[in-house]
Amino acid sequence: MTDPTPTPTPSPSAPPLTRAGVVAARALIAPYIHTTPLLTCTTLTALASTPRSPGGASPTLRLYFKCENLQRIGAFKARGAFHAIEQLKLRSPPNNEGNDWRSRGVVTHSSGNHAQALALAARTSGIPAHIVMPSISSPPKIAATRGYGANIVFSGSTSTEREAAVAEVIASTGATLIPPYDHPDIILGQGTMGMEMVEQVAELMAGQESPSSPPRTLDAIITPCGGGGMLSGVALSCEGTSTRVFGAEPSFEGADDGKRGYYSGQRIEAVKSLTIADGLRTPVGAIPWSIIYERRLVAGMYSVSEDEIKAALRLVYERMKLVVEPSAVVGLAVALYNEDFRAMVEREAGEAGWDLGLVLSGGNVSLEALGKLFAEP
Amino acid sequence: MTDPTPTPTPSPSAPPLTRAGVVAARALIAPYIHTTPLLTCTTLTALASTPRSPGGASPTLRLYFKCENLQRIGAFKARGAFHAIEQLKLRSPPNNEGNDWRSRGVVTHSSGNHAQALALAARTSGIPAHIVMPSISSPPKIAATRGYGANIVFSGSTSTEREAAVAEVIASTGATLIPPYDHPDIILGQGTMGMEMVEQVAELMAGQESPSSPPRTLDAIITPCGGGGMLSGVALSCEGTSTRVFGAEPSFEGADDGKRGYYSGQRIEAVKSLTIADGLRTPVGAIPWSIIYERRLVAGMYSVSEDEIKAALRLVYERMKLVVEPSAVVGLAVALYNEDFRAMVEREAGEAGWDLGLVLSGGNVSLEALGKLFAEP
Repeated sequence: MTDPTPTPTPSPSAPPLTRAGVVAARALIAPYIHTTPLLTCTTLTALASTPRSPGGASPTLRLYFKCENLQRIGAFKARGAFHAIEQLKLRSPPNNEGNDWRSRGVVTHSSGNHAQALALAARTSGIPAHIVMPSISSPPKIAATRGYGANIVFSGSTSTEREAAVAEVIASTGATLIPPYDHPDIILGQGTMGMEMVEQVAELMAGQESPSSPPRTLDAIITPCGGGGMLSGVALSCEGTSTRVFGAEPSFEGADDGKRGYYSGQRIEAVKSLTIADGLRTPVGAIPWSIIYERRLVAGMYSVSEDEIKAALRLVYERMKLVVEPSAVVGLAVALYNEDFRAMVEREAGEAGWDLGLVLSGGNVSLEALGKLFAEP
Repeated sequence: MTDPTPTPTPSPSAPPLTRAGVVAARALIAPYIHTTPLLTCTTLTALASTPRSPGGASPTLRLYFKCENLQRIGAFKARGAFHAIEQLKLRSPPNNEGNDWRSRGVVTHSSGNHAQALALAARTSGIPAHIVMPSISSPPKIAATRGYGANIVFSGSTSTEREAAVAEVIASTGATLIPPYDHPDIILGQGTMGMEMVEQVAELMAGQESPSSPPRTLDAIITPCGGGGMLSGVALSCEGTSTRVFGAEPSFEGADDGKRGYYSGQRIEAVKSLTIADGLRTPVGAIPWSIIYERRLVAGMYSVSEDEIKAALRLVYERMKLVVEPSAVVGLAVALYNEDFRAMVEREAGEAGWDLGLVLSGGNVSLEALGKLFAEP
């Protein structure tokens, strides 16, 4: 066992929180992640362009879906985790004394996709991963994370208990903390999907247009927003381009903290919601907030109800044939059902409409949970 | 109402049942169908290359999945239906007297994917489609087919009753019959997926190999086999190449008629099975049989149990995040669980192993039916 030492902090060579930082992240993680497919769906595009009611907004929307449910570990979180590990490797090359950060490993607390993502990314580089999970986590989630070779450390369910468990791991192992979203390396890693989307849509459009047409690009992207790592990363990836980025949240029990903060000018630091979009129950982190709100890189925030999330979920299963988790479809639910968003598009885009990118962020849901969701009337 | 006239029969210019016929079909249907994604899955490839039991076969298999569940109407059947319609258009250009076959429309009997495929293909060319369905068909299937603009004609459930209803439609409308699999145009249309797969895998491999490596190609493809339209079409698409084609069937209640016929040398003309792979309950048709067996273009047939189908289904949902119908996974079930197939690959391929293409043929399954399937212990 090595002596506990302070965890490394980003060195001056850490990548900047800019579009260039996302470009650099993309090159670093390319060997490890999938370029996920970009899909379209005629039926959903037609639905999005049909007014919901006689008086409803009537925008023209052409939808493009970025299938991060087909990413490694089944969610976009693989991007940030691999980037965090690659950055650590860049900043602290291994020494020969056997007591560098690599042998001490990495640690995080998560019972969800970040846990599996960090476990996989660490194992890929032969680095130990300690994952703090509440002892009440479901056995399949524990098994999945352990399946990626992580050392599971159980804790109580409150954030105080989890943080105490993390501190203990750090004290006894010297592991480096990799938080799930409030970290520059994580944000830049998640941002890589935005750049991929824009390029994939441009390629698709180039194949459909006559050679003389002016080149088109995505008009906007909506991503789900929980802690804000993905939303802020995608916003950075579109910085200085003509693609606008929006965030989508569940409104249930105040899970729309990002939206409420965005329109009141004050970040909301605590949320307690049991929305079915269980990946989006967390409040927006401080660094994501600085990008989303303070730097104004996100153009707006919208929220949807639980029933709207369920309806969008059913459409993705039945029409797109994709297994997605409830959190993955909040962007689609905004495009289909949020009258404020739809009226805004109609106003801004006119007849030309918008080419709109939507991130299907993950697909980690148990078949039993799904059965229950759709068994309800 | 126009006078009933005999339905057109294939003219001498009908495409030949050869690889060249598949090439021609591909060009004809390209504007109407999706080039569906080809996906890989590290976990399933590792599983396939692991012995099931200490004494089990230990082949090396690298799996590639052709996602026809993401095809238009949610299944590969769109390929054959569009090809049949395009061939009719080629052979009988419209005249100005308003009484050609176009105005008389097309007819078929199907309560499944072929019904929706033909309805969509016909509507796309402005041609009426009459679909004979048993009156006990599930309301969602009826609604889906009607949603593609078809005229639904209800019949009894026996094949005699269905055929009588089709004859009546032909007598009263002069519509052209487009059967679901036992027809050259349908077979050639389905075959286009085989050609796409081989090309997509070659592209993927080219990206992974060093430029000096010799080019590799798919060693084999397994497709599900019901009426045999897809299997025989894919076999034609690989005629004269080094890619071997195999068929997969459920064994439940004798649904492995193709396999039993193949190894006894005699086509089995009737099947009565309620396998969960409901798209594969039909016997192999005469024309598919001539390609599969008489011309020896299929290298072998394998079957799997209901439990093996369910296990493969769960893996595709949980690991690949794809919504597929039970019929779609019989090829994967063969690769994972059929010891005869696995021992054969081990023997034939040695350490180099095989690059194996699997067709995920469709994804049309109700969420309620899925819930039931996975609610069982």
